[in-house]
Amino acid sequence: MISQKASGITSFIVMDIQDKAKEMEARGEHIIHLEIGEPDFDAPQKVIEATINGLNNKDTHYTHSLGKITLRNAIADHYQKTYGVTVDPEQIIVTSGTSPAMVMAFAAILDQGDEVIIPNPYYACYPNFIKMFDGVPVAIKVLDENGFKYDLETLKSHLTQKTKAIMVNSPANPTGAVYGEQELKNIAALDKLVICDEIYHGLVYEGECHTMLEYTQNCIVLNGFSKLYAMTGFRMGYAIVPKELIRTMQILQQNFFLCPGSFPQEGALAALTEDCSTELAKMKETYNQRRKYLIRRLKEMGIAPICEPQGAFYTLANVKNYCTDSFQFAYEILEEAKVAVTPGIDFGSNAEGYLRISYANSLENIKEGLNRLEHFLKTKKNGTVR
Amino acid sequence: MISQKASGITSFIVMDIQDKAKEMEARGEHIIHLEIGEPDFDAPQKVIEATINGLNNKDTHYTHSLGKITLRNAIADHYQKTYGVTVDPEQIIVTSGTSPAMVMAFAAILDQGDEVIIPNPYYACYPNFIKMFDGVPVAIKVLDENGFKYDLETLKSHLTQKTKAIMVNSPANPTGAVYGEQELKNIAALDKLVICDEIYHGLVYEGECHTMLEYTQNCIVLNGFSKLYAMTGFRMGYAIVPKELIRTMQILQQNFFLCPGSFPQEGALAALTEDCSTELAKMKETYNQRRKYLIRRLKEMGIAPICEPQGAFYTLANVKNYCTDSFQFAYEILEEAKVAVTPGIDFGSNAEGYLRISYANSLENIKEGLNRLEHFLKTKKNGTVR
Repeated sequence: MISQKASGITSFIVMDIQDKAKEMEARGEHIIHLEIGEPDFDAPQKVIEATINGLNNKDTHYTHSLGKITLRNAIADHYQKTYGVTVDPEQIIVTSGTSPAMVMAFAAILDQGDEVIIPNPYYACYPNFIKMFDGVPVAIKVLDENGFKYDLETLKSHLTQKTKAIMVNSPANPTGAVYGEQELKNIAALDKLVICDEIYHGLVYEGECHTMLEYTQNCIVLNGFSKLYAMTGFRMGYAIVPKELIRTMQILQQNFFLCPGSFPQEGALAALTEDCSTELAKMKETYNQRRKYLIRRLKEMGIAPICEPQGAFYTLANVKNYCTDSFQFAYEILEEAKVAVTPGIDFGSNAEGYLRISYANSLENIKEGLNRLEHFLKTKKNGTVR
Repeated sequence: MISQKASGITSFIVMDIQDKAKEMEARGEHIIHLEIGEPDFDAPQKVIEATINGLNNKDTHYTHSLGKITLRNAIADHYQKTYGVTVDPEQIIVTSGTSPAMVMAFAAILDQGDEVIIPNPYYACYPNFIKMFDGVPVAIKVLDENGFKYDLETLKSHLTQKTKAIMVNSPANPTGAVYGEQELKNIAALDKLVICDEIYHGLVYEGECHTMLEYTQNCIVLNGFSKLYAMTGFRMGYAIVPKELIRTMQILQQNFFLCPGSFPQEGALAALTEDCSTELAKMKETYNQRRKYLIRRLKEMGIAPICEPQGAFYTLANVKNYCTDSFQFAYEILEEAKVAVTPGIDFGSNAEGYLRISYANSLENIKEGLNRLEHFLKTKKNGTVR
């Protein structure tokens, strides 16, 4: 009954780990969750209030298929204010989360055999999106010693006649890498369509965050409200696309989704237009404290990456001295140390030998989780000859 | 830049009509909207309140990828209570509207060249969904004289080795047709997978509504909260699928959508578990009054279909005596009579010569719209020799 294509879509290992952790918790075990992919904060109060107002005002009907013009205007203003780039609201399509924006972007541009360059490690879904719409993911190793970012010459050497787009994720999941101005410029200069996943924008703790739109119009920017504003349950994302693509995206949305949620759009609008700065600053500062602690501890434990994470809320930990199979190792850690982490292999072959550790959890829990992990690794080292 | 497949996805003509109507309104024209595809009622008050409670309780995070178990239990209970069928909550996947459920269903089952039988007239998106996932829509004429329902022998004659599924839409958009018990049984007996779009369930004014699940487990049922509960802006739908398909649907959801909205699920839960019966009964009674009025008027005007609509909130009007090009005719009606209707051709070749008239508008507006249409048709008849 199941199609070949659907059979080829891989599951998220992190979700299997989470399920296993929940089973253990149900048996009374105490698990520390360092696998988590969503903010451990709540959405800003003004966002909640605006959404409630929407509901009270019976804003419960279909909206414009591109999303409300008020919200699209606010997104355009946000890009003007934050990055100094001019975006036409008619280039913006609001979606039920950032993932459906990605679904439509790939559906809109990919023909059979079109190649899309992605970094390896990558967000686990990228290859699945590309394959579902007949494309070929070309995963290029990005190395710890290069800050987990594309090496320009390697990137160039992978460009072919079939290269339809280059995918950039900055700040990146799972590495926390953030591309600088010159690095983005260099990619823009390759004169290929760039698909830039900017969902972790705003969560940068060192240096500045730049959007690909500063350097080229030939790009599809994917962004949303889930991460920076802790609005995962709202399912609110958007794409900013070249003008020649917007009508196609609109037709896809009308057919496959009709429109994004109505009152949740009021929450998204408030995130951009109301003053949520105190809550946002507090979240960011808290993430940064955890990040610094985490880096220090990983260094002490001898498993820190060369490249310190600068953005998002993840880091990779290099456990190549301890394992060759991160999948099995993550389950061992869960069972023996009672700590849930995501095996690197979930993010591609080049993340094998790493674990992804999320700091979307309290400092207290991070401490306890790392204590347990440290103890586990010591036992491991004593017991294993490598 | 645009893929061949995406280029092949047709736009909704009804949306173009709507845009044109809005332009005219902006110029000060008074348009009567009989093209509308969503309830003109608001969601029940208890639904609104439960959603607000969800927001106040910070229910703004990712949920289980299949949807909350509370909601899936309530959906299972609803099918038990309403139809006497037992559905395992583990067969249910909650989605951001019914359309994404359809996206995933076709992605899950269709291989290149697989045929899906659909009725003609059909909901405009069906062929687009099927083509996007490499399938072949096989549109079978359903005739006014057969109640716009499949003729069993014709249906059988179109079954091939490549038939992957038969699609049934009951109550149907745009015809208002409702399949009876024996008709559904006959289709189930063909022993093919049935995809049953039941989004207008509950909106049946004559006879009973049956779910395909009463007659076969080999079916994918698509349903949601948009129509019966007037919750379009919530984007809440679901699919009930055979057990062997649920893991694939879940993996697709995790990859492409992560999960449905969190607090909107509280609204959906309230729709099923709180007592909204007074509001639902009022909506249904109001639709039925309009339906009866509309049928009477169409008969007087000589454009009623043979098959009176029994469900949903649409009817087709037969204008074959007035036009051969419903697309052009709908624009003429809009420009000259200031009434927005949907041309039959939006629903397939077999609806050419028809208009879809929606009764999701007040009786007063329906009267005025029909008066205008009647006047227009008289002018037309006098002016045209056929």
